[in-house]
Amino acid sequence: MRILGIDPGFGRTGYGIIDVLGHSYRMVDAGCIETSPKTPIGERLVAIYDAITTLIHQHAPDEFAVEQLFFARNVTTALTAAEARGVVLLAAQKAGLPVGEYTPLQVKQAVSGYGRADKKQVQEMVKILLSLREVVKPDDAADALAVAITHAHFAVYNENMARVQASALQSSALLKQAPATRRKPT
Amino acid sequence: MRILGIDPGFGRTGYGIIDVLGHSYRMVDAGCIETSPKTPIGERLVAIYDAITTLIHQHAPDEFAVEQLFFARNVTTALTAAEARGVVLLAAQKAGLPVGEYTPLQVKQAVSGYGRADKKQVQEMVKILLSLREVVKPDDAADALAVAITHAHFAVYNENMARVQASALQSSALLKQAPATRRKPT
Repeated sequence: MRILGIDPGFGRTGYGIIDVLGHSYRMVDAGCIETSPKTPIGERLVAIYDAITTLIHQHAPDEFAVEQLFFARNVTTALTAAEARGVVLLAAQKAGLPVGEYTPLQVKQAVSGYGRADKKQVQEMVKILLSLREVVKPDDAADALAVAITHAHFAVYNENMARVQASALQSSALLKQAPATRRKPT
Repeated sequence: MRILGIDPGFGRTGYGIIDVLGHSYRMVDAGCIETSPKTPIGERLVAIYDAITTLIHQHAPDEFAVEQLFFARNVTTALTAAEARGVVLLAAQKAGLPVGEYTPLQVKQAVSGYGRADKKQVQEMVKILLSLREVVKPDDAADALAVAITHAHFAVYNENMARVQASALQSSALLKQAPATRRKPT
């Protein structure tokens, strides 16, 4: 399974693509879409939308993962980041990709096993999980890879849960079937 | 000049189209794009984006106007509204339309001449300015028409300012020219 993870922002939108092979991950690509504050807002949104669409065409991911926004001190920054996030989600939906959304807490927990890990610890774990020699730069690219890894964790978890539920259903079906077959001869 | 005004929101995005003929306005169309909370977020963003794009194709506006978001009590609502606003701005930019952005205060002042006017007063003024028999329903459609009217006000104001500046430049050019022609014979 190939996952495209996004850390959305207006000035900088990080992206990271990983391949999931069983329980191991491989980095395919990572980087950052930058837009200049001097450019009008509409043009910046088009730049982000077009870049995401190009990444999808280039790397053909199976699934898409985006970080949810939390409230930073700067309210205006949060609102403009949400506008960028809107066009990111639009690009994923237009490409027909399943989308996972994760809070910063979920990302930290999935990657480092610790919800209060700092940025550096998360980046170090991303490096280890992807078997890289160096920490990925810029930060936004590393964060996007962390989002993709989080999606992989949840996908594996959901798959296991589905398997457990299916086997539970099968057992209960067998239990229900059993009395019926026993009753038949009477 | 034809203006498409938008009052962005996630559940309900209002739209209003007006024609500006000198200092009078005519309503062309108004309504509301609704998306269900039961529908996944990506599908809702696509619905909003596609509806705006269809409106642009249908009515061929010359300019586009969007209300800016202010901070409501509900922070989550503000963030999702910003996501919707992002795809609205993307649709306008993809269509190559000039975009005006106005704060709720600017809209109230432009339409009613009073920054603290309430929703009902604004809707009553929209009715009067567009020479309609009844107040436009739903509220989001009336609000979108108010945004379009605000853009018209600012467009006329900017045009007049440009004319004043041009005539000022002309006068100063004549003044500069005058001494030169006077100096020539000496």
